[in-house]
Amino acid sequence: MRHNLIEPGDNEDITNERRNSSFSVGKLAAFIHGGEAKLRRRHEILKFVESQKDLQDPIPPEFMSRMERVENNARKVVAMTDKLSFIDQADIFEEGSLFQSLIMGRDFHAMSLHYVMFIPAIQGQANDDQLDYWLPLAINRGIIGTYAQTELGHGTNISKLETTATYDEKTDEFVLHTPSISATKWWSGGLGKSSNYAIVPAQLIINGSNKGLHMFMVQLRHLDTHMPLPGITVGDIGPKMGIPGNDNGFLIFNNYRIPRKNMFMRYSQVLSNGEYIAPKHSKLRYGTMVFVRSVMVREQAMQLAAAVTIAVRYSAVRRQGEWKSGCFVKCHYDHGEIYNMSSVNAQLAEGITEFLQELHVLSSGLKAIVTWEVAKGIEQCRLACGGHGFSLASALPEIYSFAVAGCTYEGENIVMLLQVARFLMKTVKEIRSGSARLAAIAKYLLDDRKYKSNFRVWQMVKYEDLIKDFEQVTRNQGYLWCVHAQR
Amino acid sequence: MRHNLIEPGDNEDITNERRNSSFSVGKLAAFIHGGEAKLRRRHEILKFVESQKDLQDPIPPEFMSRMERVENNARKVVAMTDKLSFIDQADIFEEGSLFQSLIMGRDFHAMSLHYVMFIPAIQGQANDDQLDYWLPLAINRGIIGTYAQTELGHGTNISKLETTATYDEKTDEFVLHTPSISATKWWSGGLGKSSNYAIVPAQLIINGSNKGLHMFMVQLRHLDTHMPLPGITVGDIGPKMGIPGNDNGFLIFNNYRIPRKNMFMRYSQVLSNGEYIAPKHSKLRYGTMVFVRSVMVREQAMQLAAAVTIAVRYSAVRRQGEWKSGCFVKCHYDHGEIYNMSSVNAQLAEGITEFLQELHVLSSGLKAIVTWEVAKGIEQCRLACGGHGFSLASALPEIYSFAVAGCTYEGENIVMLLQVARFLMKTVKEIRSGSARLAAIAKYLLDDRKYKSNFRVWQMVKYEDLIKDFEQVTRNQGYLWCVHAQR
Repeated sequence: MRHNLIEPGDNEDITNERRNSSFSVGKLAAFIHGGEAKLRRRHEILKFVESQKDLQDPIPPEFMSRMERVENNARKVVAMTDKLSFIDQADIFEEGSLFQSLIMGRDFHAMSLHYVMFIPAIQGQANDDQLDYWLPLAINRGIIGTYAQTELGHGTNISKLETTATYDEKTDEFVLHTPSISATKWWSGGLGKSSNYAIVPAQLIINGSNKGLHMFMVQLRHLDTHMPLPGITVGDIGPKMGIPGNDNGFLIFNNYRIPRKNMFMRYSQVLSNGEYIAPKHSKLRYGTMVFVRSVMVREQAMQLAAAVTIAVRYSAVRRQGEWKSGCFVKCHYDHGEIYNMSSVNAQLAEGITEFLQELHVLSSGLKAIVTWEVAKGIEQCRLACGGHGFSLASALPEIYSFAVAGCTYEGENIVMLLQVARFLMKTVKEIRSGSARLAAIAKYLLDDRKYKSNFRVWQMVKYEDLIKDFEQVTRNQGYLWCVHAQR
Repeated sequence: MRHNLIEPGDNEDITNERRNSSFSVGKLAAFIHGGEAKLRRRHEILKFVESQKDLQDPIPPEFMSRMERVENNARKVVAMTDKLSFIDQADIFEEGSLFQSLIMGRDFHAMSLHYVMFIPAIQGQANDDQLDYWLPLAINRGIIGTYAQTELGHGTNISKLETTATYDEKTDEFVLHTPSISATKWWSGGLGKSSNYAIVPAQLIINGSNKGLHMFMVQLRHLDTHMPLPGITVGDIGPKMGIPGNDNGFLIFNNYRIPRKNMFMRYSQVLSNGEYIAPKHSKLRYGTMVFVRSVMVREQAMQLAAAVTIAVRYSAVRRQGEWKSGCFVKCHYDHGEIYNMSSVNAQLAEGITEFLQELHVLSSGLKAIVTWEVAKGIEQCRLACGGHGFSLASALPEIYSFAVAGCTYEGENIVMLLQVARFLMKTVKEIRSGSARLAAIAKYLLDDRKYKSNFRVWQMVKYEDLIKDFEQVTRNQGYLWCVHAQR
């Protein structure tokens, strides 16, 4: 284990900073990554990736055109999945995501959605017959799929999605249709050029009655020629602020027919006579959302950690101006703050099995606050590097454009905060009417509002008291706005 | 004159918003752009640019590779300068910059520095003989030049630049040399691929004595083969966060010799016997800096205006969620705020002839505050457009990456604010010792600190009182920090 980053030939200033550090770099790294064994495993994976010729880029991707980047990443994802046996399958979320990020950098690829959404949706939504048919095809890359939910007009508010799947009893088929421009499927990763299948959520219509959003397995392109099938218009939505290696696409249906058996039938069914069997209980999907957001918060914190590391190293070697030796610019973000973000989050992830509304609300608020703080912090680090922070060679523009997308996806931040506010308002009302039933993590809302803070000077404050102070702020704000809103 | 933007076939929501507007769009546009005549002229220039086939892009530039963008912009700049007679030469800063921005978008080109720095530096620094020789060559594009000041290690602090020009009396030449990696010239626009000449500021060394920074005209590449000349290492610094059409470059000298007459000799001279004639008076260049920053502040405000326009239009057509009709998300930036930025600035520009230190300090502070506010505001607009703000089709990522560079160039913002702080500290000290001599715009620092604000409720406040309040805040902060710093 290398616990010291000093190498022969290093810049003198950074070597001095490292010599003078008051902690062991290796021990901190082990602490952040969950122990010596995990850290050692990270180094093994790094060495393996570096040793594989077909996982390398022929030239730095920043110099490629957009299509070259998409094609280069598509080539690498095939090589990557061929070597997946190197990764501990039981630890796919940690080892797998490290493996992928070492190969892809801060970018996605033609099959990102295939692995993150297409296969999991088959596993979660298909009945046994469907599973036996589609899962092996998808895993063996016999078909390449994506997940086409978001439309041009609606993303966050999924109940308003407009694409329809109308059952035609005469032919035992569903007719998929895009009734307006705003109903065009938009953004799906890998849809622009790569996928030949998609899982499509659409409003299920039977005899003129809307049964709500259901999922359908839809072939988009010919398996030999890769040309769009008749009734399908599909293409690329063009370049974006970041994630250039992913061909995000659009999709329009013109009365496109699929067999009835292509509706995912694990929870609800449509019989050949048009009879609709509703799901037994409409399952709250808090679990998945809390999990995805908890993974995301950790990932975001690591992006900020990368930016802080670059900026701090730069501040050590940059000797412009009239600084005295040892008087370097220090970034106000420290690794402690970043570690806080990921550890609050680890506590969240442990609670997933409780499936509580409170946990969902907490994860929504945390997602919004963390992604904003991370984006702001990365830009601060980037600007602190002056002109060099504008060069892609610093990596900072890419870190920013990759991370800032997190303010929008997996629940737009303003919508997330509105959810938290709505929960607080509702809870305060229930407390006043005596009908509140709160989980442990929200019980503090019931506490006495006459609480007096123990805070005197910041040097002496206890963490427990700080938490109590924040609880009091939340109580007061909740009650205050509840009164304000009733006026 | 079209005073109404409504067109047949427009989106219904945006047409309703336009119908309900409480002001004339045309009158506001005329107000912002300086009158009906100027506005009419803007439309003429727009129509002219749209009518010229060789000023168009063959495909949207966002789909081009980096080298295609550099080459496309190089092609367009030649076509643009061939058509420059369409522009009123007496109004080159307004008409010319509009003309260029309509053709280039938010990007620079291979000859940006040729026109903005190379030719003006010849005009300002050459003696009459040099002017007669170089100016026609540059104007007729016989040579393509850039300005290579910034080095890898030093940008803002120009006195620390390391490149040397050592006079060799035996051969009547200067020897240009890059003594260290950090002395590598870095960032110059058009240096990477396009320029064959550069004006190079370097430390002038005569008989071992450093005479300070002087400017030299240096040929870099062969005029026929375009290959770097022996002793010159030159190339591209790679892609950046924005401004992809400009080939920013690096430059290393290995004891590269140029004739003595290639030193710009308008203000200081080196004679063939090595005698150095110093400039008569070291001229303060506040004028140029105040002018460039005042142009920049207006340009930055217009970038925010563009982002606000896009976000407000988007908020009018986006109908996600459960908004009631007429209840659209409103952006907190309004055109009033943007107009304030450019009008404070117009007042600044008028004062240029006074060449006051106070004006320079004010323009430094204004530059920093405006560029930060603009960058923050653009990102806010971009995020308010949700996923579509991440697509380059919204133009918002490009507006951000173009504008945010302004926080760094023309004086890094932190350095700018330190200049303001230093001026305030110095002035407070002088006031206390009775030696302060202040220009009119800074006289308020002498006023009574016992001032009591007239501010009661924001609805009733007068602008004059607000200004007095801000003056009082500045006085108090200045005195407070002066006391703090003396401890």
